[in-house]
Amino acid sequence: MLTFELLKTEGQARRGRLTLNHGVVETPVFMPVGTDGTVKGVLPRSLEEMGAAIILGNTFHLWLRPGLDVIRRFGGLHRFEGWQRPMLTDSGGFQVFSLGGADGKGRRLTEEGVHFASPVNGDKLFLTPETSMQIQTVLDSDIAMQLDECTPYETAGRVTSLDEARASMAMSLRWARRSQAEFARLENRNALFGIVQGGMFELLREESAARLAELDFPGYAVGGVSVGEPKEEMRRIMASTPRLLPAAKPRYLMGVGPPEDLVEGVGAGVDLFDCVMPTRNARNGHLFTRFGDLKIRNARHRADERPLDPTCGCHCCARFSRAYLHHLERCGEMLAPMLASIHNLHYYVNLMREVREALDEGRFAAYAQQFAAERARGIE
Amino acid sequence: MLTFELLKTEGQARRGRLTLNHGVVETPVFMPVGTDGTVKGVLPRSLEEMGAAIILGNTFHLWLRPGLDVIRRFGGLHRFEGWQRPMLTDSGGFQVFSLGGADGKGRRLTEEGVHFASPVNGDKLFLTPETSMQIQTVLDSDIAMQLDECTPYETAGRVTSLDEARASMAMSLRWARRSQAEFARLENRNALFGIVQGGMFELLREESAARLAELDFPGYAVGGVSVGEPKEEMRRIMASTPRLLPAAKPRYLMGVGPPEDLVEGVGAGVDLFDCVMPTRNARNGHLFTRFGDLKIRNARHRADERPLDPTCGCHCCARFSRAYLHHLERCGEMLAPMLASIHNLHYYVNLMREVREALDEGRFAAYAQQFAAERARGIE
Repeated sequence: MLTFELLKTEGQARRGRLTLNHGVVETPVFMPVGTDGTVKGVLPRSLEEMGAAIILGNTFHLWLRPGLDVIRRFGGLHRFEGWQRPMLTDSGGFQVFSLGGADGKGRRLTEEGVHFASPVNGDKLFLTPETSMQIQTVLDSDIAMQLDECTPYETAGRVTSLDEARASMAMSLRWARRSQAEFARLENRNALFGIVQGGMFELLREESAARLAELDFPGYAVGGVSVGEPKEEMRRIMASTPRLLPAAKPRYLMGVGPPEDLVEGVGAGVDLFDCVMPTRNARNGHLFTRFGDLKIRNARHRADERPLDPTCGCHCCARFSRAYLHHLERCGEMLAPMLASIHNLHYYVNLMREVREALDEGRFAAYAQQFAAERARGIE
Repeated sequence: MLTFELLKTEGQARRGRLTLNHGVVETPVFMPVGTDGTVKGVLPRSLEEMGAAIILGNTFHLWLRPGLDVIRRFGGLHRFEGWQRPMLTDSGGFQVFSLGGADGKGRRLTEEGVHFASPVNGDKLFLTPETSMQIQTVLDSDIAMQLDECTPYETAGRVTSLDEARASMAMSLRWARRSQAEFARLENRNALFGIVQGGMFELLREESAARLAELDFPGYAVGGVSVGEPKEEMRRIMASTPRLLPAAKPRYLMGVGPPEDLVEGVGAGVDLFDCVMPTRNARNGHLFTRFGDLKIRNARHRADERPLDPTCGCHCCARFSRAYLHHLERCGEMLAPMLASIHNLHYYVNLMREVREALDEGRFAAYAQQFAAERARGIE
């Protein structure tokens, strides 16, 4: 099941509430990414404490390891990974296409699906809209995604042409129908989202959105952004695409992005976000804060008794100093990425909480301005 | 300050209570090792929750990184690492001697102290009983250790002779006096422990213990075990040495060991233990349980829905299955060592809690038997 209530709007920005089989998600919301059945370096209880309402799982990775027989035994991903709140899974397509490398030689794409070799053991595998739905049904994620072809920005240095993007988008549409049919056949009681493609071409995005709307998915995603395109292109597509989607359905912007893009995305009408940035950057000592970002390895933090951000309510800022985090990072201690991941995810999750509060109070525009000013101020 | 109450004895085994500047420690107790100012992979709050009453810090490592200027700024190690319960620091000697390698060429030992090059930046450094006390005073650990020479079991393949062990022990005694004098001069209000050496020779251990007793330390450690000697040698020394020490003072067996050795050590009259095994083994997927140990990478755990140990009350066993831990380990996910470290440390800490309860109720001998039988039974 999925029900979506649109509680309030301000311009294109939306304040909503999503009810899924495993619980309620207030939107706009940020979803931490749990690729291999774990949000890297973070205990599920830490995610609960910071208020994460929904996390991601990666169909591709979980299909290969631990394998569906194991997940089936646990009745789905929730019990397997000890997470009882909602989950969303991707279709596996993005990872399969990434496998190919820039020249795409690592996989073979046909109308039927994608042939590729398992990066774990070399097994020949075949991912189709049908198998993706079958896998996601075993995973029992609250939100499943259709299999699509994520149109690349460029291939081997050449920017994707209009014709190529149209052909790719058209196949994603055909796969949307097949995904939907298989999802129904499987009697999956969760929700399946369609994905808008169309590359950097507004007219293709419009066509994709219109055709998907006819299929009446319970929710829609904007795919094919943050795929290597210049920032201005990404902004153009992010600004124009969400409003093409049915207002009564939740909208998910896939794989985006830095905090500024999340706030901009909300302003453009996006409800759900996911991104590996908070956890990946944490593992590289890159910390996000209200007042800009910092690199904890920098020598200036060596003796700094202050928390990362005195206004932050996360476990890391409540208990540890910049000097301690700097020390852990320099020593290569595991506690460094652990604490940094808690902080960065808390920052993202809490940013969306602040956005929701601003929307509730009809002051999102002012909030977005203040946010940008504080972030630009830079951290002391 | 340090006060030690001997609450109850059973044979050589002792149930005690140690009151230190940062709190009370019920003994016998296991102390998790926090080398670089962190128990590897474990949040301090997890240590608190599992009931860890006192942890270790490593003088050598913390001297080099972050350096004393940083620790001084925080008024000691407690605030720096966000741990407010008691701490014990070693003298730094063990690490300096380890640096040398089997031939000892990496450092130069004199009566005054040890010259060596920093493994972090190559700086020439000199560790003496006086500098060790100065460093530990900055660290402000509740229990500091004298600088000693940890007599090796063998050097370059040749077992240490009686004369060599005697000379080494004698120097450790002279360093004990110098450590004590400097600790007093620094007006350090914590407690300094003397360390019994003497290699594998009981008569040297007796002499060391007797001479140290004259110095009236508030507590004593048994050093120079678990240094590469055969297991029978280790057991002989562990069985005979603790009882040589003043009964009214706490006794600490350094760097030991597997769970069986802890229970045997308690039976021999030891009050405090530390060891890297629970955390190091956790990082290698080696899990300790009441019913024997298991290697979580083993394929037989792949689909096992059970917790590591259904009788274990740790966070890992409460929430996660063997199959999930197996999956995390196979994927190289950070959550694998995180959860394994929580479990293993909980096992060690809880083992000592059970030992204390048995001692309280005058049934330690029966407990030790049951413990051995359950461990030998092997895990299903």
